[in-house]
Amino acid sequence: MTGSINAEWIAVDWGTTRLRAFAMGAGGSVLASAASDDGMGGLSQKDFEPALLKLIQPWLHKERTEVIACGMVGARQGWVEAPYRAVPCPVNVGIPIVAPSESASIRVHIIPGVMQQEPPDVMRGEETQIAGYLAGNPDFDGILCLPGTHTKWVHISAGEIVSFRTFMSGELFGLLAEFSVLRHSVAENGWDQDAFGVAVSDALSRPEQMAAKLFSLRAASLVSDQSGATGRAMLSGLLIGAELAAARPYWLGQDVVLIGADQLVANYQIALRSQGMDASTADAAKMSLAGLTAAYNELTLTI
Amino acid sequence: MTGSINAEWIAVDWGTTRLRAFAMGAGGSVLASAASDDGMGGLSQKDFEPALLKLIQPWLHKERTEVIACGMVGARQGWVEAPYRAVPCPVNVGIPIVAPSESASIRVHIIPGVMQQEPPDVMRGEETQIAGYLAGNPDFDGILCLPGTHTKWVHISAGEIVSFRTFMSGELFGLLAEFSVLRHSVAENGWDQDAFGVAVSDALSRPEQMAAKLFSLRAASLVSDQSGATGRAMLSGLLIGAELAAARPYWLGQDVVLIGADQLVANYQIALRSQGMDASTADAAKMSLAGLTAAYNELTLTI
Repeated sequence: MTGSINAEWIAVDWGTTRLRAFAMGAGGSVLASAASDDGMGGLSQKDFEPALLKLIQPWLHKERTEVIACGMVGARQGWVEAPYRAVPCPVNVGIPIVAPSESASIRVHIIPGVMQQEPPDVMRGEETQIAGYLAGNPDFDGILCLPGTHTKWVHISAGEIVSFRTFMSGELFGLLAEFSVLRHSVAENGWDQDAFGVAVSDALSRPEQMAAKLFSLRAASLVSDQSGATGRAMLSGLLIGAELAAARPYWLGQDVVLIGADQLVANYQIALRSQGMDASTADAAKMSLAGLTAAYNELTLTI
Repeated sequence: MTGSINAEWIAVDWGTTRLRAFAMGAGGSVLASAASDDGMGGLSQKDFEPALLKLIQPWLHKERTEVIACGMVGARQGWVEAPYRAVPCPVNVGIPIVAPSESASIRVHIIPGVMQQEPPDVMRGEETQIAGYLAGNPDFDGILCLPGTHTKWVHISAGEIVSFRTFMSGELFGLLAEFSVLRHSVAENGWDQDAFGVAVSDALSRPEQMAAKLFSLRAASLVSDQSGATGRAMLSGLLIGAELAAARPYWLGQDVVLIGADQLVANYQIALRSQGMDASTADAAKMSLAGLTAAYNELTLTI
């Protein structure tokens, strides 16, 4: 019947700003999807279940439907805390925590994040994309890079997450482009591929000069009419270049796979290529679903 | 008569967010001062004169009072553009631009900023503090560092501004501490002097690792309960350390004088001392007034 979705189980990617749900059929097919702005950042503990049911109610037809969720929903301020696993840990998603719910029609399992003591680092959500990638590439040994607001560089070896590092390049770009004095010199759109390349190699070859380069973007628009599109590409290039300088032990001479949004992944790919590194890519949304599916499959073996 | 101020001339420091005016007596004494939030950033061109008169009207008793102003009031979006002088240029403040005014009771002179073509850089306001310092120390040869939202490092030699570099460390600190994910791990107040020192020397010895250190401040509060006061001191230390790494050619083996707000200047002094450099200090507000006074004295010789 058109319009009636009968979910075998439900996959949920619940970040700080967005909630995405997927009605899953047998065999891992996606029957329907829905999303809202009910991100974890705006919810208090009692709000989580209603926010989820608002999206998935039409898909619920079984006595009890299993829901597998990843992301910030498992943070201390989330629905229920799913304590971090510590590296080194297996690449699969570990044992989910069951969230308290009023409705008997769902049982919600939240995937734990991963933490590292030294240097201190944490992830929530990326571990599921990693599990998804490894589900399709079980023998992968190398580096997964997940560009985004907080880009992760992750060393995978022998089926384990060995170590990882987080870079705030995406968040820094947003803050500087929108709220700092650079907003007058960085366009909202537009791009200058040559300027991006120059800025990447500049930051990589002289990373200690990074702090001096930012204000130059403002000054260049005042003293030599540098365009906002060039400013935008240079800001991105400087930040990605500085990140690559710090992440060098991760990518140098390694197999690197980039998992993220298309345009951002393309920029990282170009930046790495300028250093003689060919990185392959995988789709972030697909890897999340693959990871949630792997978690569901493991769960059904145990319950 | 108590309450009646008869200004010989008026000194004005007009930045992006604040307007400060001083009723000056003969010989450079300050008779009265007033300030408002009518910074250049919130005013359109026709608003400048009323905003100024609102503050200084009670001090105007002569047929025409000269007003000397420095800062962003001379930017393209200010009262009238006072075009930049290019380095190398004399340390005095150059020839002010007269702003158009309706009232015959004032004549407003705006001090031009200073620019550098390569690497591109600009200043507006700091040139007046520099002129003020040099008025009292005419033989100074060395480095002036003016910490603030946009910290300037300025090379002075043979009575000229030779070159300078601007660092956004102050603005970056504000954005990261207030608006980024680090806000959860960086306290509004509190300090940890040891952590500050560790972060400075960390950033200075491995500046290429800077991009990897920021998110660690967030992670450390999650995985090892690092305090917000420690997070605050470490964020400041990392940013000042990265700045010192990039500004090394300015301070290494040079005479350095810090001009700025007390607490910030103290932090720069401690950071430089950790590198074996003793920097002396001067008060920023006093240097501004000294620079404006020098400009007024030059003006009265020519009009």
